[in-house]
Amino acid sequence: MAKKNAFYAQSGGVTAVINASACGVIETARQHKAQIGRLYAGNNGIIGALREELIDTAKESAKAIAGLRQTPSGAFGSCRYKLKSLEHNRAEYERLIEVFKAHNIGYFFYNGGGDSADTCLKVSQLSETLGYPIQAIHVPKTIDNDLPLTDNCPGFGSVAKYVAVSIKEASLDVASMCDTSTKVFIMEVMGRHAGWIAAAGGLAADSEGDGPHIILFPEIAFEREKFLKRVQRCVKKYGYCAVVASEGTQYKDGTFLAEAGSRDAFGHAQLGGVAPTLAAMVKEALGYKYHWAVADYLQRAARHIASATDVQQAYAVGKAAVEFAVAGKNAVMPAIVRGKGKRYSWRIEEAPLAGVANVERKMPRNYISADGFHISDKGRQYLQPLIQGEDYPSYKNGLPVYTRLKKVLVQKKLKKAFKV
Amino acid sequence: MAKKNAFYAQSGGVTAVINASACGVIETARQHKAQIGRLYAGNNGIIGALREELIDTAKESAKAIAGLRQTPSGAFGSCRYKLKSLEHNRAEYERLIEVFKAHNIGYFFYNGGGDSADTCLKVSQLSETLGYPIQAIHVPKTIDNDLPLTDNCPGFGSVAKYVAVSIKEASLDVASMCDTSTKVFIMEVMGRHAGWIAAAGGLAADSEGDGPHIILFPEIAFEREKFLKRVQRCVKKYGYCAVVASEGTQYKDGTFLAEAGSRDAFGHAQLGGVAPTLAAMVKEALGYKYHWAVADYLQRAARHIASATDVQQAYAVGKAAVEFAVAGKNAVMPAIVRGKGKRYSWRIEEAPLAGVANVERKMPRNYISADGFHISDKGRQYLQPLIQGEDYPSYKNGLPVYTRLKKVLVQKKLKKAFKV
Repeated sequence: MAKKNAFYAQSGGVTAVINASACGVIETARQHKAQIGRLYAGNNGIIGALREELIDTAKESAKAIAGLRQTPSGAFGSCRYKLKSLEHNRAEYERLIEVFKAHNIGYFFYNGGGDSADTCLKVSQLSETLGYPIQAIHVPKTIDNDLPLTDNCPGFGSVAKYVAVSIKEASLDVASMCDTSTKVFIMEVMGRHAGWIAAAGGLAADSEGDGPHIILFPEIAFEREKFLKRVQRCVKKYGYCAVVASEGTQYKDGTFLAEAGSRDAFGHAQLGGVAPTLAAMVKEALGYKYHWAVADYLQRAARHIASATDVQQAYAVGKAAVEFAVAGKNAVMPAIVRGKGKRYSWRIEEAPLAGVANVERKMPRNYISADGFHISDKGRQYLQPLIQGEDYPSYKNGLPVYTRLKKVLVQKKLKKAFKV
Repeated sequence: MAKKNAFYAQSGGVTAVINASACGVIETARQHKAQIGRLYAGNNGIIGALREELIDTAKESAKAIAGLRQTPSGAFGSCRYKLKSLEHNRAEYERLIEVFKAHNIGYFFYNGGGDSADTCLKVSQLSETLGYPIQAIHVPKTIDNDLPLTDNCPGFGSVAKYVAVSIKEASLDVASMCDTSTKVFIMEVMGRHAGWIAAAGGLAADSEGDGPHIILFPEIAFEREKFLKRVQRCVKKYGYCAVVASEGTQYKDGTFLAEAGSRDAFGHAQLGGVAPTLAAMVKEALGYKYHWAVADYLQRAARHIASATDVQQAYAVGKAAVEFAVAGKNAVMPAIVRGKGKRYSWRIEEAPLAGVANVERKMPRNYISADGFHISDKGRQYLQPLIQGEDYPSYKNGLPVYTRLKKVLVQKKLKKAFKV
């Protein structure tokens, strides 16, 4: 096999551990210098390839690359950009091939979620469709945990741990003051289409009466009266009520609560927030003092409280991607497979990319309790191992040491610029 | 000195480390059994004394008490309840004396902020005013960092660390995607009257271009145009703009941004949130894609990322309070005194409670940069040491192990109930 260079890009919403995958890819590529020459990273994702903005990872020290393992966000920059189909934008694919050819790129590692898997699949077919030989390997990443063929997605375990720890702490706070102060606390979490992240909050409740008492999932149609009744019951029984609400919480007709009809004095739709919407509902109907939090990016960037299991898996899929590549594979994704034993174990296996692209894995209904307000034992069994272990970054002056790369761009070889 | 029992209560908003102070009080009291008999804790704060709901701390194991050091919230329950003056509610003071007398209480430890210091001072005067001999020691606690005579307040360092770490992480997240996605991120933090907590966010920016780029303090009158101009400048210069906004951000006339005039379709004042208000402003004027977060209770409950300095100081003030008591002192507060050397050091000294009660310490103007949008070097110098060190709780099944006490109530001795 002739020695080829490789291209790696981060895609879509970043996570606390996507850089751990980058670390796995780069460190492993450095161990296969006979097959892989230079490893270039796209500056801001696939856009970097289209613009011929290639970061030369060889210019980064071993220490800097090792530091990626403990650094959240996308160290090379990420983007929200989906390649259209070959029929709709042939120019993009031709540009990719131009750039790949100019830089002798024969390996394509794409680190992202469902949309990115689709892009990766299209790239894997460039040999067939446009006659350019390339091996494309998808490196799974998404806090949404919605990729098929893998037991879970790197990125999810850490946001899950953040949400479970945060609602545990906030619930204790509210519990200790509910006699004379706040009675209802609502924490809004990410997950517009699926309740995986909200479900993770349920792990904090391991004894009767613990918060969160209520979880609102996008999968369960929201019913105002039923919700308010449950809130009231909790306050009467436990003195307070802690709620985890998915940003995707919606009515039966699919209307998101966050968008449901309220407008400000100027007629603008009131700014998002399932949490403030629910809080207003509670206040109006029950009169309880409330507080609410919206974690937003804090949850997916929270490397300081990452799950050790998640970090290990993120690194492992990066490493496996390179190993698959040097083994000559194409159009595959390293998937996480859960062992069958009672004690949690996992291993990496190869999954066909065609089965991953554009398929969204839903949360099984039986992970949610029968009444729709919490996780079931089955849900807990699935989620629990994913938040196992702590993997603290190193600190300096009281703050985590997060790696900044030099990001030296390779000299352009093409004369034409490409407008993205 | 005849052996007396002691009373301890937690007061006001709880923190990540108020239980570390409780731990200091209880462990130290257990070492002074010759002077201190039983140590009772108020169930839900001072209300527990009025209702004669006294928790017998002797029923808690040494392990449970040690566990308090790593447990956020108020383990005995706290309350928002300020005793009126003797003239306005003599009955409350008489009730306190009845309860104290019935349980032979001669020491009063009150763990709270400014209002609580006032209550503690009043209790310290019961000997004079109502002829009941008691020693009252205030144990400082407040995330607001607004007590005088102490260099800083236990509770503040941990919320400061949470805010600095969180905005550092979220800024990296935004930076890595701003090319095609969110350009402005706004994180709202606590501190209605003072910008101490918002200021702590500034610690995350240690190199040119780092987030946060803008901090909004209650101390600096908000000017819409100036703010928007600064946001635009940041986006043009760095690609994105990360903002930390105090919940107390206000216009020159004292109107809070969070309350400024917007009403929903039903005419209700739009629910709080400086962050969403600012986000709407940015969107309308500049059209940038935005995200916002409101950390709310998550920030003050975040024991998982507590400052080790803060935990040590919280424990130390609890310990010193008991030592002051057995030394015969009354109407004092253990204060944290910063050493003069270049390297940060601190010690505990005694401060007169009369100088603490009802005095609010403001953040010095020179801790804020000249343009009003960031912290100054002087501010950084003050804040930096307070977030030093990590003090992780122990974990089980991926979640922190937070202590739950048995909270066994002492048998009531009074026949009359007291309605709070």
